[in-house]
This record gives sequence, structure tokens and C-alpha cells, in this order.
Amino acid sequence: MNRKLRMGMVGGGREAFIGAVHRMAAGLDGLIELSAGAFSSDPQKSQNSGKDLFLPAERVYDNYRELFEKERVRPDRMDFVSIVTPNHTHFDIAMAALDAGFPVMCEKPMTFNLEQAQMLRDKVSKSGLLFGLTHNYTGYPMVKEARALVASNSFGKIRKVVVEYPQGWLSTPLETSGQKQASWRTDPGRAGASCCVGDIGTHAANLAEYITGSTIESVCADVTAFVPNRQLDDDANVLLRFANGAHGVLHASQICVDEENGLNIRVYGEHGGLWWRQEEPNSLHLRWADRPRETLRTGANYTHLSEAARAATRLPAGHPEGFIEAFANLYRNYARTLMAQLEGKTPSTLETDFPGVQAGVRGMAFIQSVIRSSDSDRKWTDVPHSGSETRSEQ
Amino acid sequence: MNRKLRMGMVGGGREAFIGAVHRMAAGLDGLIELSAGAFSSDPQKSQNSGKDLFLPAERVYDNYRELFEKERVRPDRMDFVSIVTPNHTHFDIAMAALDAGFPVMCEKPMTFNLEQAQMLRDKVSKSGLLFGLTHNYTGYPMVKEARALVASNSFGKIRKVVVEYPQGWLSTPLETSGQKQASWRTDPGRAGASCCVGDIGTHAANLAEYITGSTIESVCADVTAFVPNRQLDDDANVLLRFANGAHGVLHASQICVDEENGLNIRVYGEHGGLWWRQEEPNSLHLRWADRPRETLRTGANYTHLSEAARAATRLPAGHPEGFIEAFANLYRNYARTLMAQLEGKTPSTLETDFPGVQAGVRGMAFIQSVIRSSDSDRKWTDVPHSGSETRSEQ
Amino acid sequence: MNRKLRMGMVGGGREAFIGAVHRMAAGLDGLIELSAGAFSSDPQKSQNSGKDLFLPAERVYDNYRELFEKERVRPDRMDFVSIVTPNHTHFDIAMAALDAGFPVMCEKPMTFNLEQAQMLRDKVSKSGLLFGLTHNYTGYPMVKEARALVASNSFGKIRKVVVEYPQGWLSTPLETSGQKQASWRTDPGRAGASCCVGDIGTHAANLAEYITGSTIESVCADVTAFVPNRQLDDDANVLLRFANGAHGVLHASQICVDEENGLNIRVYGEHGGLWWRQEEPNSLHLRWADRPRETLRTGANYTHLSEAARAATRLPAGHPEGFIEAFANLYRNYARTLMAQLEGKTPSTLETDFPGVQAGVRGMAFIQSVIRSSDSDRKWTDVPHSGSETRSEQ
Amino acid sequence: MNRKLRMGMVGGGREAFIGAVHRMAAGLDGLIELSAGAFSSDPQKSQNSGKDLFLPAERVYDNYRELFEKERVRPDRMDFVSIVTPNHTHFDIAMAALDAGFPVMCEKPMTFNLEQAQMLRDKVSKSGLLFGLTHNYTGYPMVKEARALVASNSFGKIRKVVVEYPQGWLSTPLETSGQKQASWRTDPGRAGASCCVGDIGTHAANLAEYITGSTIESVCADVTAFVPNRQLDDDANVLLRFANGAHGVLHASQICVDEENGLNIRVYGEHGGLWWRQEEPNSLHLRWADRPRETLRTGANYTHLSEAARAATRLPAGHPEGFIEAFANLYRNYARTLMAQLEGKTPSTLETDFPGVQAGVRGMAFIQSVIRSSDSDRKWTDVPHSGSETRSEQ
Repeated sequence: MNRKLRMGMVGGGREAFIGAVHRMAAGLDGLIELSAGAFSSDPQKSQNSGKDLFLPAERVYDNYRELFEKERVRPDRMDFVSIVTPNHTHFDIAMAALDAGFPVMCEKPMTFNLEQAQMLRDKVSKSGLLFGLTHNYTGYPMVKEARALVASNSFGKIRKVVVEYPQGWLSTPLETSGQKQASWRTDPGRAGASCCVGDIGTHAANLAEYITGSTIESVCADVTAFVPNRQLDDDANVLLRFANGAHGVLHASQICVDEENGLNIRVYGEHGGLWWRQEEPNSLHLRWADRPRETLRTGANYTHLSEAARAATRLPAGHPEGFIEAFANLYRNYARTLMAQLEGKTPSTLETDFPGVQAGVRGMAFIQSVIRSSDSDRKWTDVPHSGSETRSEQ
Repeated sequence: MNRKLRMGMVGGGREAFIGAVHRMAAGLDGLIELSAGAFSSDPQKSQNSGKDLFLPAERVYDNYRELFEKERVRPDRMDFVSIVTPNHTHFDIAMAALDAGFPVMCEKPMTFNLEQAQMLRDKVSKSGLLFGLTHNYTGYPMVKEARALVASNSFGKIRKVVVEYPQGWLSTPLETSGQKQASWRTDPGRAGASCCVGDIGTHAANLAEYITGSTIESVCADVTAFVPNRQLDDDANVLLRFANGAHGVLHASQICVDEENGLNIRVYGEHGGLWWRQEEPNSLHLRWADRPRETLRTGANYTHLSEAARAATRLPAGHPEGFIEAFANLYRNYARTLMAQLEGKTPSTLETDFPGVQAGVRGMAFIQSVIRSSDSDRKWTDVPHSGSETRSEQ
Repeated sequence: MNRKLRMGMVGGGREAFIGAVHRMAAGLDGLIELSAGAFSSDPQKSQNSGKDLFLPAERVYDNYRELFEKERVRPDRMDFVSIVTPNHTHFDIAMAALDAGFPVMCEKPMTFNLEQAQMLRDKVSKSGLLFGLTHNYTGYPMVKEARALVASNSFGKIRKVVVEYPQGWLSTPLETSGQKQASWRTDPGRAGASCCVGDIGTHAANLAEYITGSTIESVCADVTAFVPNRQLDDDANVLLRFANGAHGVLHASQICVDEENGLNIRVYGEHGGLWWRQEEPNSLHLRWADRPRETLRTGANYTHLSEAARAATRLPAGHPEGFIEAFANLYRNYARTLMAQLEGKTPSTLETDFPGVQAGVRGMAFIQSVIRSSDSDRKWTDVPHSGSETRSEQ
Repeated sequence: MNRKLRMGMVGGGREAFIGAVHRMAAGLDGLIELSAGAFSSDPQKSQNSGKDLFLPAERVYDNYRELFEKERVRPDRMDFVSIVTPNHTHFDIAMAALDAGFPVMCEKPMTFNLEQAQMLRDKVSKSGLLFGLTHNYTGYPMVKEARALVASNSFGKIRKVVVEYPQGWLSTPLETSGQKQASWRTDPGRAGASCCVGDIGTHAANLAEYITGSTIESVCADVTAFVPNRQLDDDANVLLRFANGAHGVLHASQICVDEENGLNIRVYGEHGGLWWRQEEPNSLHLRWADRPRETLRTGANYTHLSEAARAATRLPAGHPEGFIEAFANLYRNYARTLMAQLEGKTPSTLETDFPGVQAGVRGMAFIQSVIRSSDSDRKWTDVPHSGSETRSEQ
């Protein structure tokens, strides 16, 4: 194609967390541009959100029905729609999108219950339209490498799987404070049959099935709501049996105080095993019966990482963890300062927090002094005074 | 402003690493769009690169002079230019950009030598145009938190600083193989007075000055080229003295085998200290004389992180490390598969590697089974068969 | 008392692992000396083992019955007996010891089955003799600190416990090779009802009960023998419910390839939680709802560690992990070299591997040179040549 | 030999830290028994210390001269003497011991200055008596493995060495509080030319020379006393050049707040490198140019560890770190409780903190329940009530 794909979005208005993640992720590789949206069930909030995103007012809609109706007849109509609304609305929106002929990228869990999920599957099948679900943890390069290692039988027959997803954000009755995320996720009417299992237990199950290439056949579960008066579960301990004969343990929790997003998995086979954890995603730890422990690293070139892992990697080894985001912080602040200048405004000190020309001078002074010291018999050498290192001094 | 900023780029054609990083970083927050570029000194390569980026041919130029000349007279002219070429060309391009009235974002090191750096500083000063330098490691939230903690005197007077930047990629004479990065970085004619100190030693020095809020006043250096026949240094050990009275050690190396991008810093004051390392950027480790060790985490809300750290954070705690990139992998594969479909082509198995509707059905089946097991006296319960977990089965 | 306690031992002959540990542990604090023993069911092996331990032949016995019979009538009779034989013999030996009037220290598991355990409990109760069981993992200072923190309600009501004990040494049918440990541990006639649960699952359960101060009330278990033809289990996944209302997961395994001795526990309460793992025993990681993560360290003096933790600590912070053993390696080699000299033999190069006087000269030369360099304006200074650093050059 | 070696000790009275370590280390392997001592320059304190150690009064002496004089004529005279006094006294005591014909094991630094060191070396040489120096960090198995790997040229020619020894205990003017260790170590009259370099810098230098098998040829040092009014240094940053051509950095400090005993070393050669740190002594991290990172572990049997490393290892993999000490805590408490019982006293609750017969019953109950659950279709099963898990309930 000679143009970017045009994406529409349902949900993801101001203050929504996951909608912003979807937009950043969609835009990262320069293949997709946001072109339209119904960002909130509140039309005014939808318009305001569209303005934040520099969309023309005509392509910001009051609700998803209007979005589908009007976009489908535009010559520059959106190519697909991203659905990032609360769980209980996914089904209706996805069905409507497919009816209108739009491919769908959908936040998980896909639907409110299994019945809806099966109906949606059938609809997708009939429509022939592309459907994606953001089980995003399978996007990590080392998760793909893990899957490839299991698939190539590196560890022999898989025997045991331990997958954990501890979080702590629902340790207190946060939902009674009106916090938006907590409110709908603990509400049976909007979240479905489960809070903890539905929100994060599914990620853990999906990760285990993705890496092992097998499926969970039966479960024995102890699911609990620890916080008084909570209507849905905030903790789950589950014994697992897999189709490939492996046994396992899955536990997920939202009441493990101060755990952030601790998804991790261990898989043990006859001859070796692996360990991966989401909070340190660029390392894949391998265990072997007959040789020392190894650590594979995203982007490494000392070994033949799988094609899938390499395709999922943008940066050389040692760079990936949040590197782009840190880099983007400089660009964002630069952009905001420049926007302020163009509009004749004074940027804030937060906005001017990026290195400027003075930092460049200091850098060159440092290099020169170091080389001079070393060249002059490694003697102590003064660094030419060149101003402070303060930020973006212009 | 009611539109995104328009960015032009010099350098960053096909195969360039850092140019792609600049583009991803620039686009991440939806404030900047790439509008023009001279991506290579080879006009054909520049055109091809522009096509990859979906730019109209008329805004892809043969060289930076043409870029500045033609863009300056367009009504939709670029708002600023990003310079991502090898070191020795930064000065000329930046001077020309400023002469043409364009604000500049420049890769580091800023220039070839100190003299050029000082000339450029004077030019920026006279022009009044915004200038940014991508000392990107200062963009991390926990680096900003570290700086804020030192500035607020949390540790008392700073006594000792240890900053390290070990890499291993130049352990062998890679430049003799024709590898592009190695070739120009070890060439005195293109890299300047130093390879290791110029490329990464400056990052370490910049980080130390940024966090301590002080400046390095004198150095004693032992700089070496370990690889036979290498013309520039690949290792540097440096003793430091800071303006604030602190003493320190800086060592940087490109011959520390298998070290990836191990930038890290320790700062010790009278009452406490800190440790941060780039490969685990979301943790800031604190040491105290009178209480247990603490670990601050990006996005944490149990404590009052500094305004600067919070402003640099996009995601809740536990998510940031490469999370967006992993998420983007799903979108990229979805986009490529959709593009293939729209063009009547068959997507590759790498491209169809994203979860689809089947994964959604499995997720709902898993939730239902877990809840059923727990509700039925925590008995073993079969998970309804719902197909394999394979990718994007449609 | 004005003398050390005299310990007898049953089991622990040549090649036995745990017997040697018991002797080193018993002797560490200078309170106990080994005085007698029946070290093997093979009388000759018992005598040889006694000789290795420098015991007089008259106090090395052919079997435990002789040990108890003859020791009870000596004026310098042993004060207690340590039982370090395979599981199935503990009961008979302990009963006989108590009958003979000797206090007992016993390896775990205490007996072959629950019935025996209850009989032994009654016997101990009637005899009034001191009985100890080496659930050694509760001996770590930070385990005691963990218990104290839970007991003082630092975390509020305990909600969730995850305790793991992965090992990998039985991943293969090691018992078929005749390896002694593997043979009796997988033999129902000698190990009892279980291999994995009995050997290490009990340690995990004991640790969980010790730290939480509560008891496990019910379990749901999936216990497996993964290695073909193995008669007892080598893996166990267990859901737990505690008397205090906490829910939990316990998994133990001997088929987790290359896991060494990975006992670890996490405990989460309403306001905080803890994490401890045996392979890094001097750190206790704390999690809090309202302040940064903390790490408590054995021997730390920045905080008021519990009396129990302090009483269990011999060394200042940072020293304990294997420090005494490393130190002992010097003494052992020194002793062996000296013994060889006294006997007119030539010590081996392994035995002479300890620093000698030359190392002392080098140390002083280093100090002098460093101080001279710093005093002479921090100039480069040669270190006086003083021979190589080789070991125990005499 | 058919008996243990008899050790005398000079220094190491009550409250001394390192003397107790020497005794525990000396006794660990059952080769050495403490037989005599002059434990303090205060005769009464020497006697009291001897009593604590269960020595007969006649072999506890008032000073080292008396010790040497009287022991030399006993038929059961001590075989060697361990010197654990402050630095400035080592020389005189060691000379006197050698004059009296006793082999010596000496705490480091060996003497007060280089001149004394050289005199002592000559004396040792003439006497033909065995001399040991407790550079204890070279006693770790993984340090020996590291040395063996360098010696076997696994990494190629060594290029760079970074060795660090950060501590924090002298961050404040502790010596003004009368703390004994701080007082003499910062006193030029007792410690020698240096505090930080002499106390810990030498350990770092010794470790670097031991592992590389090379010697430090020249240094450039920045040595500082950061704490006001301190007479000796508390921090040192040193550039190094080795005889084998390697360059290096050594920094040691006693003002790095909350650093405990952070000795660590990195060594990089042409093809690979290693990293070891004392606070996690059982792991040796290897880096390779052509294969994944590896971690060697003390006691591992998946690989052929060097003979020296294996000879320095007492326990299987995963056990060594402080395991013996934790185990010893059970024995110590058991011994103290038994001693109290034998003397008709009531042991304290700290002393009775060890598992007893009740713990054994609970263990068997746990095993039985787990196996029953699994055998009965993996159903929930109650654990028979068997009392609390409290300690040493008799």
C-alpha cells in the first residue's frame, strides 16, 4: 500500500488509560494513523477528546452507531476499528462493526460471557473480516522465543507450568471511592462473571497456552473476594491440567499489596525449562539438565533467536525497555516548548526539560578533557568551564 | 495549536538504527508528524526511504540543502528538523538549518569538536531558535526522580559518584568487516577525537551531571584502544572531581564482552544514596543511614514522586518496560495482515501472529470454568473445548 | 555449665550428606562436641567414619542399640543423640533413645507415617526428655523476622500465602543408577507415603505455618510421579486453606530441571506483604500499601530487627552468606598443610591453596603505593615489585 | 594424624567480631580444636573469654608472651597460633610466635607497614614455619572457579578489571562515639597509613590479583577522608595497570551509606568475561562473545567445575549460603535449652525457638492429607488437627 491504514476508535476518551496505549501502539511503526472516533458515550467528551488528538470535528462522532454509519460511506473511510470500551459493551460494538463491514481490533476480554464469545466467533467467520484481540503479553519478543523453544522440543515433553499474575491495586475497597476502573471492574453488570479471573487470569491462561502450544483441559479453582462487600472475585488459585499431559498452577490476584503487574511464567520439561517475567521482559532465563543456566536477551546476536522473536524486536540488545518512551519524553517536551513558542506563550519548566545546546558544549568539553588527560601521560586535567548542565538553556 | 507539529529529518534512511528510534519517539504522543526528509546522501536511497514512510515524493529531498531551501518556502513547511546523521556532519547541517530559520533537534555528540560546539552555541543564541540534543537517558522517569531527590537534599551533601557505561559490541575488529556503525565510529575523520568517550562516555558524564545537578571540574583518564589496529579508543577509565566537592569514577567501554547497554549510576551523600541502571529503568534503589533500603518504581502512587517523574510517565506501575512496543507488535501484525488482505495478498505466518477471535472464545471458556469450579465446592471442572489457541485463526 | 555438651550420632557415616551438616552445625558455636556414634549399619563403616572424626574407637559403636546401652552407663556419657538416618528408621531409633533416657535431635520427616508420629509425641511427653526436629529453614534470621512481623500485625489480616519448593535433581530416573539418596527416597518401603511431599513439601508447609503463625486446615492436591516407573511422587501442586482465613498455594517439585533448592514464600496481608527465598536468605523483601518497597537485611542496624532475628545472627550485615564457610576453607587448607608438614608429607597444591606471607607483603605494597599516589598530587605510582600473588608461598 | 590440630589464639576476646569468626571457621571441618589463648591484653577479660569457650583456666594466658613461653614446653602444646588482634600488633606477635617455633595464621593486613611486612617475610622464610593470612574472600568456591577459568584462557587475554568494595559503616564520625572498631581503624597509630585502603582496599586488590593471576604494576589514586576531622581515609578511587597488560579500576569506600560488604569484581577478556559479588557468592556470571550468558553455581554438577572449586564446597547446589549457620541456630537453641534443663533452669523463649515433636506430627499429618487428597480424585481434604506449630512444645 502507498498510504497508512486509517483507524477508527470506539472508547478511549480523556482519562482512559488503555485507549491511549492502543493509540501509541497503533502509531509506533508508522503503518496506522488515527482517522476517526467515537471516544465516549458522552458526545461532548467525545468531541473534546477528538480535538486533543487533532482530528477534524467531522470525523469525531457521538456514538459508535454514528461512527459506523457515516464512515462506511466516506471515500476515505476508516480501514478498521479499535474497540477499547468496558467489557460489557464489546459484543454489541464488535457485532455492529462487522455488520457495517469493518475489521475489528478488540480489547480483551472479548465479550461478557462465553455464549457471546461463540456468537461473535461465528459472525467473524461468516463475515470474513479480520479480527484481532489484544492479548498484548504475547507481543514480547522473549515470549515468542519461549514459544519457539517449546515448539522445537528443546526441553522435551513439558511436565509442569507455573503461571502467576499478582497485582495489588484492589487491596482496598477502591471501588467505593468512585475510581472509574475499580468501579466497573468489580461490577457484575459491567465486568461479567469475574473481576480478577476475567481481567488478568485470562492473560495468564493465554500466556501459558501460547508458550506451551497446548490447551488447558481442566481446572480446580479457589476463587475469593477478600475485600469486604466486594461483589466479584479479587483473587484466584487454580490447579491446571493441560492437553499435553502437563500439570500446572495458575494464581492471579488483585490483593497482593504493592505487586504491580507481576505476570510471570515457568515451564519445565524433561531436559530443561524456562522462566520469563513481564516486568523484566527482555530476559528469558533457561535451565538445563546438562549445562549452565543461560539467559537469552532480546536483540542478542550471539545466538540464533527465532524468526518470530527477531521480527518483534525494534532495537539492539540492551535498549528496549522503555527506551523509546524515554526518548519520546525529549521529543514531547521539545514539541511542547516549540508549540508554546509558535503560539507566543511561555513554556513551563516541565516542558523545557530536555537537553539543549549547552549540554552539547559540555559534552564536547568532556571528551576533549578526557582525551587530553590520557594523552598527557594520564594526568589530571581541568574541564573547560562551559556553563551549567541545566536543561534546554537557549 | 490545532494541528500536529511537522517534522523534517536529515539522515535516518533504510537500515539506520537511530533514525527509526527518533521517528518512533517523535510520533509516540501524537504531537508530531513526519512531513519531509533528506534521508540519505544517496538520493535514490532517500527516495526509497521516503516511500517506506508513506511520504509524498515531493517532500523527499536529495540532500539537506535542498530540504531547507524548498521547505522554507512551502505554506505547510516543516516546523523543525531532526538531525540523525553521523557525528562529523552535525555541525554543518545544524548551522544550515538555523540559517534557514528551522529549529533543530540533534543527535549527540552535538559536533565534531569543542570549537564547533561553541560556534553552534553562539549561533543558536543569536538565532533565537529552539535547539534540542538527544541525551535520551535523561528522559527516564526515575532519572528525573533521582535528580529531584538530590536537588531536595534528601541525601545531604553528595560525596561519591560512580557512573559506568559498559558495552561489548566492539570487542572484535568489527570495523574491518564493513559494519556501518563500527566503521564510522572508529574513524577519526568521521567520529572525532574519540570513539568510546564520544559515543557513550558523554552519556555517562551527562547523566552524572544531570542527576547531581553539579558539573565535572577535572578528570584523570586512562583511555585505551584494546583491539589491535583500532584508531580510536574503545575503553576509558576516568577519575572525576565535581564542582560540589564530590569525587567520582567514570568508566565506559566497548570491549566488555556481551555487555549490552549497561549504563548505570550510584550517588552517595552524607545520609543516603541512590542506584539506577538503564537496563532496569523503572526502579530507583535508595539507600539510607537510618531506615531500610527502598525501591521507588515508575508510576507508583504510594509515595509522592516528583512532578518531573510523573510528567515523564505514560503508564501505571509495572507496565512501562517495553509494554507499548509489545502492544505495538500486535497492531503491526494486524495492520500488515489487513494491508495484505486489502491488496489481495496472502499474509505471512509472521504477519498473522496476533490473537484473534478464537483466543477470545478460549478466554471466556477459561473464565467460565474457573468460576464454575470455585462455585461448585472447588471441584475439578473441564474447560469447554473451543479450538486451539493458535494465532488469528479467522 | 562449665563444659561443652556431648553429642552422640546415629547415622551420618562416610558419604552421607546430612550427617556432616549436622556435625558442622552442632559444632559451630562451641557449645557441643561430638563424643560418640553409630555412624552406619555396617560396623566397619561405622568404625572408619569414627576414625575420620578423631573419635576414640571405644566410643564408635556397631549399631544404635549398642550406642544407647553402653553410653548410658559411662560417667562421661553423651548428653543427647542426633538421628540422621533414612526416614523409615527414625521412629525405632528415637523410641529406643528415649527409653534409654537420651534427649533427641531428629532429622525430618520425624517418622514414617502419622501414626508413628503420634506415638512418638506421646512418648516424648511421658519421658520429659528434650526433642528437637531439624526443620532447618526456620533457623534463618530473616525467617524469624518475617514471623515477628506477621505476629505484630504489621501487614494486617493475612489473606494469601504462596510457598514454593522447586528442585530438579530427580528429573531423570536417578534411582535406577544406584545413587543412594535417590534410591531410598523413591522407595515406598524406606521413604514412606511420599517422596516429594515428604522430603520437601513438609519444609514448605512448616515454613508457611512458622511465618504465618497459623495452621493449614485443608488441602486440595494434585500429586504426580512424572518420571516413568517411579513409585513415589516427584511433584505436587496443592491449594491451601489456613485456620486464620488465608488462602494459599503450595507447590513442590523434584523435576523442575536445574532448580537447586528454591524454597521461597510470599505472604500478603491487608496492608502489606513479604517475600523471602532461601537461596538469598539474608534479604527480606517487604511490600507496603502506603510506602516504597523495603528490603530488610540480616544484621542491619538501621532498624529495630526483632530479638529473634538478632539472636540468630552471628555476623555484621553483608557477611553472612557462606562467609564462615569461605573463611573455613583457608583454615582447612592451612590445617591440612600443617598436618602434612607435621607428618613429614608433602601437601598437595589444593591443600596449599591459602594466602601466605607473600600475599601480606603485596598487600602492604599496595597500600603504600595508593597512599603515595594520592599524596603526590594523585599521580601514577609504581607498586614495588614483591613477588607473585601465588598461594602460601613459604 | 589421629587427632585434631590444637590451635592457640591471640586476641578475639569477648565482643571481638573477627576472633569469633576465626574460631567458627577453624572448627567447621573438625580438623582443629581451640586449646589455648591470650584473648585480651586485659588478663581478667582474657580469663573470662576462656571460660566462655570452655577452656581450662591453665591454658588461658595473660598475654601472648606468656602464651608462647608456657605452651612451648607442654607435651600437648598448641600446634599453631591464630593472631586476631588490631593491625599494629600483628608484627610483634607474629615475630614472637615464630621465634617460639609456632606456625602462624594471621589476620590481614599482615603488618603496620611495608617494611615490617618484608622483615616478617624474611623471618618466615628462615624459620621454615607455616604462615597463613586470612584474605578470606579467596576462599569462596566461585572465586576459585573464576581463577581457574582465567588461568585456562577461557576468556582470552584479559583486558579490563573492575573491582569494587563499597561499605557504609563509617559514613558518620562513628569513632567519636567510642565504637571500638571505628576507633582503632581510623587511628593512624593503630591502623597504619590508611583506614579504607588498608582495611578493604587490600581485599579488593588481593581478589583482583588472585582471579587474574597477574599483579598490579602501577596505580593512580584519589584517596579521601570525607568525614570531617577523620585522620585516615574513608574512600579511595584508583586507576590500575596490571602486569599482563590489563587496565582497571578499583574503588573502595566506607562512606557509601548502607552498603554492607559489597565486594565484587568484573573481569573482561577478548572472548568473554566474568562477574562475581561477595553478597551472592554462589553464582559466577559468565559473558561470552558467541553464546548466551551463563551462570555457574557452587555445587552444580551439570558442568565440570574446577577441582579447586569443588574442593572448597561442602554442600550440594542451592544449600550453601548461610545454610550451615541456619542449621546451627537450631542446634544452638537445642543445646542451650538442654543445658538449662541439665542445670535445673528455665530456658528463655529465645532458647526454645526450635522445632519439636509437635512439628513432626504436623509434618506427617500434612503429608498424609496431601496424598489422600490426590489419591481421592484430587478432592479437598482436611488436615487432622494436631496442635499448633509452635516451637519446641515438649
